[in-house]
Amino acid sequence: MSEKALAYLKENRRNLLEKLNDFLSIPSVSTDSAHKKDVEAAADFIVTYLKEINFENVEKQETGGHPLVYAEYNGAGPDAPTVLFYGHYDVQPVDPIELWKSDPFKPEVRDGRIYARGSSDDKGQVFMHLAVFEALMKTEGKLPLNVKVCIEGEEEIGSENLYEILHDKKEQFQADFAVISDSGMVAKNQPTILYGLKGFTGIEITVTGPDHDLHSGMYGGAVRNPIMALNHILASMKNVEEVITVDGFYDDVEPLAENERKLIEQVDGEDYSEPAGIKETASEKGYTAKEHTMARPTFEINGIYGGYQGEGTKTIIPSSATAKITCRLVPGQDPVKIQQLLEEHVNKVAPSGVTVEVKKEKLSAKAYKVEPNHPLIEKAARSYTKAFGKETVYVRMGGSIPVVEWIEAIYDMPIVLLGFGTPDDRLHSPNESFPLDSFDKGMETLVYYWNEVDNS
Amino acid sequence: MSEKALAYLKENRRNLLEKLNDFLSIPSVSTDSAHKKDVEAAADFIVTYLKEINFENVEKQETGGHPLVYAEYNGAGPDAPTVLFYGHYDVQPVDPIELWKSDPFKPEVRDGRIYARGSSDDKGQVFMHLAVFEALMKTEGKLPLNVKVCIEGEEEIGSENLYEILHDKKEQFQADFAVISDSGMVAKNQPTILYGLKGFTGIEITVTGPDHDLHSGMYGGAVRNPIMALNHILASMKNVEEVITVDGFYDDVEPLAENERKLIEQVDGEDYSEPAGIKETASEKGYTAKEHTMARPTFEINGIYGGYQGEGTKTIIPSSATAKITCRLVPGQDPVKIQQLLEEHVNKVAPSGVTVEVKKEKLSAKAYKVEPNHPLIEKAARSYTKAFGKETVYVRMGGSIPVVEWIEAIYDMPIVLLGFGTPDDRLHSPNESFPLDSFDKGMETLVYYWNEVDNS
Repeated sequence: MSEKALAYLKENRRNLLEKLNDFLSIPSVSTDSAHKKDVEAAADFIVTYLKEINFENVEKQETGGHPLVYAEYNGAGPDAPTVLFYGHYDVQPVDPIELWKSDPFKPEVRDGRIYARGSSDDKGQVFMHLAVFEALMKTEGKLPLNVKVCIEGEEEIGSENLYEILHDKKEQFQADFAVISDSGMVAKNQPTILYGLKGFTGIEITVTGPDHDLHSGMYGGAVRNPIMALNHILASMKNVEEVITVDGFYDDVEPLAENERKLIEQVDGEDYSEPAGIKETASEKGYTAKEHTMARPTFEINGIYGGYQGEGTKTIIPSSATAKITCRLVPGQDPVKIQQLLEEHVNKVAPSGVTVEVKKEKLSAKAYKVEPNHPLIEKAARSYTKAFGKETVYVRMGGSIPVVEWIEAIYDMPIVLLGFGTPDDRLHSPNESFPLDSFDKGMETLVYYWNEVDNS
Repeated sequence: MSEKALAYLKENRRNLLEKLNDFLSIPSVSTDSAHKKDVEAAADFIVTYLKEINFENVEKQETGGHPLVYAEYNGAGPDAPTVLFYGHYDVQPVDPIELWKSDPFKPEVRDGRIYARGSSDDKGQVFMHLAVFEALMKTEGKLPLNVKVCIEGEEEIGSENLYEILHDKKEQFQADFAVISDSGMVAKNQPTILYGLKGFTGIEITVTGPDHDLHSGMYGGAVRNPIMALNHILASMKNVEEVITVDGFYDDVEPLAENERKLIEQVDGEDYSEPAGIKETASEKGYTAKEHTMARPTFEINGIYGGYQGEGTKTIIPSSATAKITCRLVPGQDPVKIQQLLEEHVNKVAPSGVTVEVKKEKLSAKAYKVEPNHPLIEKAARSYTKAFGKETVYVRMGGSIPVVEWIEAIYDMPIVLLGFGTPDDRLHSPNESFPLDSFDKGMETLVYYWNEVDNS
C-alpha cells in the first residue's frame, strides 16, 4: 500500500528538493518585525501547497500576530481516524551572521546535508509531511486517514496566540491524536521516539546602580558595581556542581526512577562532547550527562551584558547589567511557581547599593510525558524501524515544545513526537542543517505510519 | 602683575569661548581609527595657537601613533624656572550616543556649563592654559617663567608611545617641575590640590565552552555554561563586603595612616550619591567611601558580555563570555605583579568543562604621591584660594594618570596637579560638561600661579 507513494517520492525527489529550497529561501524570522512580510510569504507557500494537493478549507487564520495555516482532509471517511498535524513555518534569527559558511536563506547541500536556517527546525520537517501527503494524493487519490493541519508562524517567539486559538476553536481542531515533527533523533539514522519533553520558564534580571556610567577612578570604592552585583546574584543560583541553589527549586521535581535510569543508560549515541566541541561534560552532581539532559531540570544563562564591550579598555563603572535566564523543567514542576521562586531568590540575595528588576518571560510550559507503549506510539516505532532499518529507542528530551502541553491540556489526546532531526543539525545556531537521509527516510517513515494507523 | 592679563581674559572672554568651541568641535577620539584625521586636526589647532602666541620650536612630533605637540618658551631667561606643561587633546569615545542631550561635538552652554566631549577631560583645561599664555604674552609681552609644552593625543588609549618619547628625549623635555590640569576639584569651586593618584592595571577574561552556541534543550545538563563559569570566577574575586579576595592582592598595599584618615575626613563636599544617582554607597569593609576611593585599591568590572543580547529570549548555551576588568592601585602595589596574581587566581578557580584565557592590558601605572607641603604645591594652593575665595583642600584621587608616574620615574621633578574639573562633569560618560566658573576662575588661578612661581 505504500509502494506507489514511495516510488513517487523517489521519482520526484529532485523537484521536491527544489520546492523545499523555495520554502527555505523565505526568511521567515518571526522575532524580527523587519521580516513580517517574509513570514506572511512562508504562510502563503504552505497555503498554495495544500490547495495544490486538494486539501479543503485551506485558510490563513489571523491571530493578532503571524498567521496560522489551517486545512482539512476528510476523504478517508467518518470511520477513519483523524490526525492533527502541527508544525511551524517560522524560524530562529540567524545572528551571529558572520559565522555562517553560506547564506542562511540560500540553501546549499554539503556533505549530504541541507544547510539553511529552518532546514531542521522546522520547515524541512513540515515540508516532508506535505510532500508525503502529495505523494499519497497523487498516487492513491486519497489519504488513509483524515487530517487537520495546524502550521503556525510564532513557535520561535512563544506561540503566544496559539493557546487561545486551540482553546476557542476546539471543535475545528478536534482530532483523535496529534503528530508533531519538530524534534530529533539521538543520532543520525537512529529512530527515536520522544515520549517526554521538558517544561520551560524564564526571567530577565537587570541590576542598576548609578543612573549613568561613572568614571571608575572617581567613583571606584564608593559605588556598588552592577555587573559584580549581578555576578554574585547569579553565582548564588547554581553552584559549580551544577546544582541549582534557588530555595524550593527542586521541591516538586518527579524523582528519576530506577527503571528510567536503565532506559536512559541504554540510549546509545548520546555523545555531547564532539557535536558541542567541548573536552568534558558537566552535569548535576549525582547524575550523568544523559540523565541530566533528559530528566533533571536546568538553569541556563542565555545572555549577559553590561558596560563596555568594544575594543580595548573603558574605565567605567557601568550603570546597569542584565542577564537572560531560561529553565527547563521536569514533570511535577510548575513554571509560574518556579518564576516566583527565582524572583524571590534574586530579591533576597541582591546586595545593597543597587536596584534589581526581575522581568518574567510570558512564555512558559509544563513538562510532558506519554506512555511509551501506547498503540499509536508502537506503530510509530515500527514505521521508523522499517524505514531506517534500526531498532527504535525511547527517550525524554531536554527541550520543550509548549504546544504539546497545550494540546494535552485542551484535547487530552495522544501526541506522537515523530522527529527526524540529528544532534549535528545546529538548531538555533549558525550553519543549521538537516541530513538528506532524514529527509528521505523520514518521508518513508511517514508513508508507512499513515498506512499503519488506519488499521488500528 | 596679574591685573593686565586678568583684564585681557575678561575682555576677550567671548572670543576665547568661541575659539574653545572650535577646539571642542573636533572629534579627536583616539581609540577610533575612523577619527584619525580629526585627531590630527586637533593637534594642528594647538600648533597654530602656540605659533600665534610666539612660542618657539613648535612641532607636531611623530610618535608611531597620534602626534605629540611640542613647543618652548625661553623668554624668561636662564635664571627663571622652567615648567613642563603636560596635557592631552584626545578624548574618550561618546557611546552610548543616544543618551547625549546635545551633539557631543557641537558644544552647548546650558546652566553655566559647556557641554561637549572633552570639555573637562582634557581639552577645556588644556585650552585654559593656552589662553593664559596668550593673555600674558599679549599684555606683558613675556611669561614670568620658561615653558616646555607637551600635549599628546593618546592619553585616553594609554599613552603607549609617550614613555619612550619622555625617556629618549629627556634633554628636550627637561624642566624644574611639571604642571598638569587633567583632574578635578572635590566639588564645584572648591580648590583642590591632588597630591596622590592611584595606579592602574587591567585584564580581560574570556571563558569558552562549546565551540558554537548550543540549543539549551539539547545540551542543557551536559555542558558547562561559560557565562555561569565566568560569574563564579568573578564572584570569587571580590565579595559583597567589597573586599578583593584574590590571593596576595593586598600584600604590598601601603596602609592608610591615621593622620591621612583625618585629612580625608576633613575633605568636605565629597558626595557620591547625588552625582552618581545612587541611594547608598558601598565600600570596602572597614573603610568609608572617601577612604576607599582615595586610598584603597579597587577591582572593577567595566564590561561583560556573552550570548544573546537582543529582544526577547534565545534558548542557547553560548559559546563564550568575556569580562573586562581594571584595578586602581595604591602606593606599594606593582601593577605587573597584580596582573599575575589576577591571572593565577582565575586559573585556580576556573571550573572544568571550559577553557579560560586571560589577556593582560598593556597599559599600567604605579600609584603616585607627593608631599603636600612642597613650596610649589603651597603656591598652587594660594593661587587657587585667591581665585576661588576658598581654603584649598588636599586629596588623593581614585583615578590614575600614567604620565605622572613616568615623569616621576624619568625626571624626578615635582608634579603639580592643578585640576579644575568637578564631580558633575560626567567624564567618560554621555553629557560631559565643564563649568564656566572653572574656566574663568581656573584661568585666574593660573595667572596668579605663574607669577608666584617666579618669585620662589
